[in-house]
Formats: sequence, structure tokens, C-alpha cells
Amino acid sequence: MSAPNVQLLLTGNELMTGDIVDSNSAMMAQILKELGLKVNRKVTVADDLALLVSEITYMASTSDLLIINGGLGPTVDDLTAQALALALGVELSQHPQALSHLTHWCLQRGTELNAPNLKQAILPKGCQIIANSRGSAVGFYVRYKDCDIYCTPGVPHELKAMLIEQIVPLIAKKIPSDLITEVTRLQVFGLGESSLQKAIDEQLPNWPTEIELGFRAGMPLLEIKLTTNTKQGLALKSLWQKKLVKVLGDHLIAEVQGKPKSLAEHLLNQLQQHNIKVTTAESCTGGLIASKLTEISGSSSSFEAGFVTYSNEMKTAMLDVPASVLAQEGAVSEAVVIAMAQGALLKSKADIAIAVSGIAGPNGGSKDKPVGTVWFAWGRLGDIKTQCLQLPYKRRQFQQFVAAIGLDLLRRYQQNLTTIPNYIAERAFPPQ
Amino acid sequence: MSAPNVQLLLTGNELMTGDIVDSNSAMMAQILKELGLKVNRKVTVADDLALLVSEITYMASTSDLLIINGGLGPTVDDLTAQALALALGVELSQHPQALSHLTHWCLQRGTELNAPNLKQAILPKGCQIIANSRGSAVGFYVRYKDCDIYCTPGVPHELKAMLIEQIVPLIAKKIPSDLITEVTRLQVFGLGESSLQKAIDEQLPNWPTEIELGFRAGMPLLEIKLTTNTKQGLALKSLWQKKLVKVLGDHLIAEVQGKPKSLAEHLLNQLQQHNIKVTTAESCTGGLIASKLTEISGSSSSFEAGFVTYSNEMKTAMLDVPASVLAQEGAVSEAVVIAMAQGALLKSKADIAIAVSGIAGPNGGSKDKPVGTVWFAWGRLGDIKTQCLQLPYKRRQFQQFVAAIGLDLLRRYQQNLTTIPNYIAERAFPPQ
Repeated sequence: MSAPNVQLLLTGNELMTGDIVDSNSAMMAQILKELGLKVNRKVTVADDLALLVSEITYMASTSDLLIINGGLGPTVDDLTAQALALALGVELSQHPQALSHLTHWCLQRGTELNAPNLKQAILPKGCQIIANSRGSAVGFYVRYKDCDIYCTPGVPHELKAMLIEQIVPLIAKKIPSDLITEVTRLQVFGLGESSLQKAIDEQLPNWPTEIELGFRAGMPLLEIKLTTNTKQGLALKSLWQKKLVKVLGDHLIAEVQGKPKSLAEHLLNQLQQHNIKVTTAESCTGGLIASKLTEISGSSSSFEAGFVTYSNEMKTAMLDVPASVLAQEGAVSEAVVIAMAQGALLKSKADIAIAVSGIAGPNGGSKDKPVGTVWFAWGRLGDIKTQCLQLPYKRRQFQQFVAAIGLDLLRRYQQNLTTIPNYIAERAFPPQ
Repeated sequence: MSAPNVQLLLTGNELMTGDIVDSNSAMMAQILKELGLKVNRKVTVADDLALLVSEITYMASTSDLLIINGGLGPTVDDLTAQALALALGVELSQHPQALSHLTHWCLQRGTELNAPNLKQAILPKGCQIIANSRGSAVGFYVRYKDCDIYCTPGVPHELKAMLIEQIVPLIAKKIPSDLITEVTRLQVFGLGESSLQKAIDEQLPNWPTEIELGFRAGMPLLEIKLTTNTKQGLALKSLWQKKLVKVLGDHLIAEVQGKPKSLAEHLLNQLQQHNIKVTTAESCTGGLIASKLTEISGSSSSFEAGFVTYSNEMKTAMLDVPASVLAQEGAVSEAVVIAMAQGALLKSKADIAIAVSGIAGPNGGSKDKPVGTVWFAWGRLGDIKTQCLQLPYKRRQFQQFVAAIGLDLLRRYQQNLTTIPNYIAERAFPPQ
């Protein structure tokens, strides 16, 4: 049996003006996913009766499950009940259960049951009430043109409670038992979407159609999603996931379990496990690396100090970078980042350091050191590695990317990884 | 002449699974609103070729302007060009301008133009290219069934730049001339949306209906938008804007001209004008204030050094905060932030400093100093001000808010403003 066609109809002027961002449909999709259901189509319209009637009519005829969200409130622009009645060709009438819910609701709150409230009990004839434990607006259900239609409130916490408490159990009863969905997410750093697609095309040309591959480009982490909906897919998945993991190599940061972690969080977890302290010496990123680390709760156990040394004078004053080295080599140089890392390690007594100095632009570049040039130094006292890259991004993206690479270099250092990451292979400067 | 029918088609599996919340359509609606255009209908579908073709066909026949968002990338699930070609009944072919953009893009980044990238140049025959200043995916335009169709990239900052730089001017040319829209935007810091609404209700009860008042809550700046669509509104606007500015007082940061500036940028502009240098001494914000300052191009003329002193030992080692004061008063105390500010001023030779020390949580709070307590010290040597606030936000929001307040305190110090900002009136700790 094929998967049910699921559609969402979202209503509300506020969704059309851009004044609010629709988070309800993402919540609904997440909840439906746990039932193995995929949302096929989503339509959003303003509070316009004719438009609502036409959308409901069309959507009911093309889907097995239609959830209508919003428009259940007491004001004149709440039109869902009226639109649904017109689409079904039935009358509106006062629903006794809805009236009793409203009466009880007002009584509990010591308010009067007024005319606008009463409107919330006027529903399409023959519909079934769905209880709302959080608000005055009851939901309702009808079956029409072989489609299950649920009308739900727009207030997010009311919607969520109604879905979980009432609607999910109703839907679950109707789901074909052979529907399975399994999703695996992999976090990757240092491989762009197109490089990754190319690597998969070349190295895994027979990727099975039963395993859907999806990419989500984040800054800086890329997320790869493997989704299976069939038993065949499930049987193939662990083998192909292993093959993919091999292609990803050390660019794989982690398989996501629950809420995705940031690069800084992965690094901090490693450092905490081994009781290692880290320090930062930042020029071109101006505190961004320190800020990414201290964003994480509990970071104080592995991070005590960071040095933002933006000018040459301050590199000398705060980190003892010799003025002569700065004069001879320039601030963006291997000798300077090494001295910055050493200075930070000595001053902070941390175990490992990351130092960066680069030209974020748009000004400050030269022929030898164009905008986008950045030197990294990282490691322990007596074991400091260096690398120069050319990262041709605009200022803010450059800083974000430099910070991410700095954290990734420390992650690789900590894990003793010796493979060359893609960002070094592609961005080393001068080109190797 | 009636307003054009505007529809949005959003594509992408990630929009259907609930993994991400769609913020692009709100952004598009906001930008279109400034042209006096309202979005009538919005459809979201997964990366499914048949579905895309049928939606495009139907939407083009029912709208005057259709913006398709997403599906321009290099991977197999990027289907917009193919779907549009099928809907139009034209072939796909390599577009020379798109190819030249891609070639240039890769060249600039020192990467190879690979097969997945090349796919991004294969577009419906006869379409017009729309430049993408931020990414590899060009946009494209066709006219079909009396509908203007624009295909745009899904990456938010690429979309935004393409809309503002390229598409808005194209659309503006076609808009009926009796749709006048004038928009003024005011940036405000330190007044929440509900406090502001209350102040307006109380102090400007007769606000004219011809001037639409909109709020966009940003973090940390709030944007107030005054929109007029009529000649009467236009005539009333400057008077009412003056009245509103009076209500806002020193919370008004600026009227937005062009691209909105951040708090840090406003502050840096002030400092640069007076040739003043600033330094930061950060505990609970862990480098975030320094990072916000150095994000701005040209910040090096006013910022040379920042101190991220996360542990007590490092407050002493880097900023000479006396260990005895730390022991007696605790790290989150007036005496410590004063010593941090003084230490930073002495070490960096900057003119003004901001120092912060607080409890970001979720752990580390006590009865006297609950999570959310933060001490600020700011000013010049010999003229250091202090304030303690209670900011009951989660860790990351707390850090963002503390950083923003720190920057705003410096802005007020620089301008010799003596009024009490709302965040001190409402959040002083202990309550005054």
C-alpha cells in the first residue's frame, strides 16, 4: 500500500504579510513524521472565504489527510468553519459539545460567554468535535471525498496539544502497517554540497533509489539525510551508510542524535572528556572563536581565556609577539601566528591553542597577501602546526568560515587525524 | 487598476519535513509589501518533478507575479529549471551567461567547475538571467500566460540580495502608478514591542489610520515601520513621525537609510568620528562584544584589543583584577567589573572600555546572584559607570542581550545621554 497523501492548509492574513514566520507547519510535519507520514503539499492563504473554499475543495480531492490550521477564533476574519461548510455543501449549526466546552471554558476563567465566543460553537453540520485542552477554540473533523479533514487552532501551543493528545491517536489507527520511516542524519564539515555530490556520483554511482539522500547546507556544517520508507530500503541502509561514511572520511563530524550540536560543542565535549584546556589568540576573527566556545553551557571547564589582539601593538603587549617579527614578516604570517599561539599558551596555561591572523577585507589586501589570506597555528607548546589558506568570502562569511576551520583543526588535532581536509586541499595558499 | 495577484511557490524537501522553518516567504512578503504588493497565496511542495510542474502551471495561470524559491542548487534534488521548462513546454539548454557566472564564481574561489556545478547553467530556453551576487546559483525570469515568473535561490542571504538588487527594480517598473508606498523605518533599542505599543496607545491615542504602524522585533534592535499608501497618509506622515520620535526618546538609534546598521556599527561610526578607541573586557559574553565590533569593516581604527577573561585566575593574570577582590566580592560584582574595565583601559591604552561579568546559566546561580545577573562597567579611566541588571533569558539570548546592552551603554556614554533607558528602569537588580 502506498503512503497516504498528506496536505496542510494554513490560513491567516498574518502569514501572508511576512509579519510572522510560520512555525506551525514545521511542528505538524515533525509530529506526522513520527507516524511515518510525509507532508506532500502545503498551501497558505489569507482570510478570504472564496479562496478558502476553493483550496479546501481541491485539496480534499487530491489528498487522504488534510489538516487545516487557523481561522477558528472568535473574530470576523476567522472563516474556517464557514468555508468548510460551503465546500462540503452542508449548513452551519450550533454544536452542543462545542457550546458546552465554551461555557465551561468561560466559567473557569470567570468571563462572560459573549457573542464573538458563541461564534466558535457554530460548526459544519455533522462534524465531530476535537477537544482543545488549552484554549477556547475546539477543533473538528469531517470525512469528505475519501479525505480525512481536521480543523485545528492557529495558536501554536493549542495546536501542539490537540495534535498530540487527540489527532495523532486518530490518525495512527488508520495508517497502513507497512509504512516505516527511518531517518539518519550526518553532520559534515569542510565538504561543500557540490563536492559532496560529485564524490557520491563518482564513488557510489549505484546509490539505491530506496534510500533518499538529502542535503542541508548550514553555515558551517552540512547535514546529510538518509531517509528510507520501505522494507527494502531499510535492509540496504546500513550497508550504504557505511559506504557513504567511508567517502566522507574525516569530514564526518557526527551522526546526529536528537538536537544537532555545533562544531564548538563537539570540540568542547572532546576536551572535557580528556580534561584539556583550550585558549584562543584571534586577530581577524576578533573574538568569534572564543564566543562560539563560550556559547556552550559548561565551557568554563575547558576555556579560561581568549586574546583578541587586533593591532600589532596589542599582539606584542598581550602575547609577546616580537615587534621585530611583526615588522619583518607582517601580521599575517606564519611566524606571527606561531608566536601568537605560543604567547596564548604561556599566558593562559591552557594545553592547546588556536591562533588566527588574516585579511578579512574589504581593504588591507596586497599582491602577495590578497584579501582572504589567513594563517592558522594550532597545537601544544612544542608541537604547533600551521597552515595558510585563501578564503575568498565577504568579511562576515570569511570570519565565520575562519572560526569554523579553526575549531575543526583543533578537533582533528585532538583526534590525531592525519588526512588532509578538503578545505586545505582546495584552499591552501599559495596553491600546492 | 486592481492590485496584481502575487503568489509564491516554495520548493524543498527540508520545508516539508519540518527540519527547517520557512523564513524566506516572510522575507519576500516584507520586501513586496514595500512595493505595495500583497501575497495572495503561497504553496510549498517537496522536490517532486510532477508536483512542481502542476503547481507552476496552475499558479502561472492564476497570478500576475509568481516567485519560485529554491531548487536552483547543483544536486539531483534541485528541480526548478527542469520543472519550469516542462511547464512552459520548452527545452533545457546551457545558458551562456549562467555558464560565464559559474566559471567566474569558481575561478574566484580557486575551485574546479565540476559536473554538478555545470547543471546550474542548464536553464529553460529563452529565459533571462538574474544575477546572484552572493552565490553560484543564478536566478532566471520568464513571462508565461501573462504571468511574470522569477526563479530564486533558497539560501536566505542570496535570495535577499537578489530580490533587493535585481528583482525589486524589475517589478517596480511594472507596478501601476497609483499604488504609492512610502516607508520609513526607525531602529530602536531597549524598548520591547509591548512596552512600545503601550506607550503609543497612551501617548498617541489618535494615531491616524492612514499611517500603518508595523513592528519587526529583531535581536537586539526593534524596527518600527511607518507605511503610507495614500496621499492623505503622506501629508500626515512627517507630523506623526515627529510625535513618535518624541515618545521613543533616546531609545531611537537611527532612521534606517538603505541597509540597516547594527548597534556595533552605529557605535563604531561615532567613535571613528571622534577618533576614540574602545576596548572590551568580557567574562559572561566570552568575546561576543569584541566579535560584534570586529565584524564591521574598518573597525581596526577604533578597536585594537579585547580581553576574554572567563576564569578568575585569568581576570587577575590578564587584567590585574586583585585576587582578594575576586575572593571577597565574587566574579560577578561591581568591584570586579570596575577592575576589569580599568585593567583593560590600562593594558590596551584605549580611551573607553566596556566590562561585563554575569551568570549566563543554566548553572552557577545563587540566591543573592541568580542566573541572569550581570554587572556592567563602562567609561574612561577616572569616570567609570556601573550597573547591575537581571536578564531572565536562556544562555545564548542572555549573551546576545548583554552584548547589545554593553554596546548601547557605550553609545549613550559617547553621546552624553543622561536619560534612564527602559532596560535599566525595568531590569535593574536588585529592583530599585
